[in-house]
Amino acid sequence: MSRGILFVLSGPSGVGKGTVCAALRRKLPELIYSVSATTRAPREGEQDGVNYFFKSRDQFRHMIETDALLEHAEYVGNYYGTPRDFVEKTLSEGKDIILEIEVQGALKVREKFAEGVFIFLMPPSLNELKQRIVGRGTESQATIDHRLSVAVEEMNLLHHYDYAVVNDEIELACNRIDSIITAEHCKRERFLGELFQQLEVANTADNI
Amino acid sequence: MSRGILFVLSGPSGVGKGTVCAALRRKLPELIYSVSATTRAPREGEQDGVNYFFKSRDQFRHMIETDALLEHAEYVGNYYGTPRDFVEKTLSEGKDIILEIEVQGALKVREKFAEGVFIFLMPPSLNELKQRIVGRGTESQATIDHRLSVAVEEMNLLHHYDYAVVNDEIELACNRIDSIITAEHCKRERFLGELFQQLEVANTADNI
Repeated sequence: MSRGILFVLSGPSGVGKGTVCAALRRKLPELIYSVSATTRAPREGEQDGVNYFFKSRDQFRHMIETDALLEHAEYVGNYYGTPRDFVEKTLSEGKDIILEIEVQGALKVREKFAEGVFIFLMPPSLNELKQRIVGRGTESQATIDHRLSVAVEEMNLLHHYDYAVVNDEIELACNRIDSIITAEHCKRERFLGELFQQLEVANTADNI
Repeated sequence: MSRGILFVLSGPSGVGKGTVCAALRRKLPELIYSVSATTRAPREGEQDGVNYFFKSRDQFRHMIETDALLEHAEYVGNYYGTPRDFVEKTLSEGKDIILEIEVQGALKVREKFAEGVFIFLMPPSLNELKQRIVGRGTESQATIDHRLSVAVEEMNLLHHYDYAVVNDEIELACNRIDSIITAEHCKRERFLGELFQQLEVANTADNI
């Protein structure tokens, strides 16, 4: 059985990663979605191992120390991270897994998991991204300016990724990601091992 | 306008290149199909520039001498080749072009056009390829044996290609090729130039 592929979906804040990932879950239910570990308390209805792996701060620190996380970050007093063993287990079962994550986290994952396929979700244009950030209409001008400059910085990280997918329409973006998944499974490297095995058998048995 | 992409569809003889390419024409009519040059006489109903570019032997030799062909070969007394200018013109118009060709020709194209995307059409297994070659039922055992050994040698050329597409069912094979075309258009490199231009404008105009 051939190994699965880790796909990392990232992109600047405001580009619509969560929306696209939710649509992708409906379109590709066979794809496994990475479950994060967190020290935050479970909310009503949240299940351990489904929404998050809920951990104590001690447990989480132990995971950091034993390199059990592909990346982690602290956010409003809680830790969040990507458990390596869940990703590894899924891949070794021959299943693909997708991880939706902000750009800094994605770069950390790349360091530990260079064989992953990194997809950068892009706005149709910088101007469009500006409109989306401003358009929420709930934030002060200073906050908007800050978010915009962060987004522009994040856009500059595109060159660390393998693919760029324009999020002009959610369905189109999902179709592009679906195509990338299919194409990655057609990469020549994934066939060479199996083919040489067949050729070996053919030559040895002289049955072809 | 961004440049189109050259896709080269190749694979061992007997794998079904022609059938898949014909199905692809129906599925993706916007894709341009490379037209070969030949010295063979036009058959009833064949149009110059549609089925082939019909050339005299002198014209064809001149094309060889002036490096106007991406590859060429002689087959039962006639020359066949891929005119470079038709490929270049199509790509510069921002359109993709696909070239269906046997494996030796594809390797020659790769030498002159390394930026092309090379797709190797594979049988589901060597045994399946054997069945397909034997199954035609019109050839002597010696011919079959020769075709089989050629096919195995051709399979060994997979490592020169970017992708491998298994031709288990024509429709599935077409879908995979369609996905590869979409994914190649999402390659990060194709976005970097345009993005930096936008970031440049954004920084200069300070309008973001």
